[in-house]
Amino acid sequence: MPHIAVPENRPGIRGLMASKPSSGRKLSELAQQLLRGDSPLTPGERELIAAYVSTRNETRYCAGSHGAAAAHALSGGDYTVVDAVRLDLATAPVSAKLRALLELAGQVQVSGLAVTEEHIAAARAEGADDETIHDTVLIAAAFCMYNRYVDGLAAITPDDPAVYDEIGENLAAKGYLS
Amino acid sequence: MPHIAVPENRPGIRGLMASKPSSGRKLSELAQQLLRGDSPLTPGERELIAAYVSTRNETRYCAGSHGAAAAHALSGGDYTVVDAVRLDLATAPVSAKLRALLELAGQVQVSGLAVTEEHIAAARAEGADDETIHDTVLIAAAFCMYNRYVDGLAAITPDDPAVYDEIGENLAAKGYLS
Repeated sequence: MPHIAVPENRPGIRGLMASKPSSGRKLSELAQQLLRGDSPLTPGERELIAAYVSTRNETRYCAGSHGAAAAHALSGGDYTVVDAVRLDLATAPVSAKLRALLELAGQVQVSGLAVTEEHIAAARAEGADDETIHDTVLIAAAFCMYNRYVDGLAAITPDDPAVYDEIGENLAAKGYLS
Repeated sequence: MPHIAVPENRPGIRGLMASKPSSGRKLSELAQQLLRGDSPLTPGERELIAAYVSTRNETRYCAGSHGAAAAHALSGGDYTVVDAVRLDLATAPVSAKLRALLELAGQVQVSGLAVTEEHIAAARAEGADDETIHDTVLIAAAFCMYNRYVDGLAAITPDDPAVYDEIGENLAAKGYLS
């Protein structure tokens, strides 16, 4: 049960945003910019960062939704890469650059102050430019907000993986403003 | 030195947002909604929540700016309440309701999962309604994003308290979109 009344008992962040549309709209617009707007990172790579941070924050709703969105955006609904990243980033089948960016995102999840020159240098050594580093840090930071909003208000969290697969397929196809 | 190039070496989050205006604009619009938009909480109370969370995250730039904005919005630039909240929330001269909301915000700073039914019940017992609880959780969550963005990219952080006082006075008077 959520800590506040949610219209029509809608699950996840959508229910919370529906309870206050004025702030909900700003949260959706930010997600659309960060995950679908201009960036050197593909939508699939950005969804994977979102899923990785949400998994580390143990926010089941966001980890499920963005993991599914990443699977659909990266590989037509195949979860091999997403599941491997969640299980063990060090051995997951991603590029060295994406691994360095996910490690950077993992530091941001701990704290902004946990990011060191070495984490930035490791990402740059694999070809990350300023905008890639900026976007990685901001997406990771943003999911520390979305995750806390969802868990802090105890959003309704479905158990069925098929629900998340459908949400993720829809997010991959239509984004955050529909 | 920031981890990325910042236009004109502008300090704090403003420099980071200027490095990518498309996302910067969305971050400013969200701040304006959360701290100045429709809410049962006053702008001063909301700035105090922002300052408290930023202090707990040890993000000097945000703690300084929003602490000053709270001092100007609450009491014409008098820092007595802001400093007391930062030093020891339990004994600070704030209402029982605001203390319960700041305690709730402090839990969100740790993790969304750290918020329990007891924290929500304590806020309700002091008169907080659904929207007050929603806004408190979302503001606290949002500052876990802004703080990580600022520290994760090592934004330029002035040392002079007078700089923050001027920023805070300006934020209290003009908000986040000017």
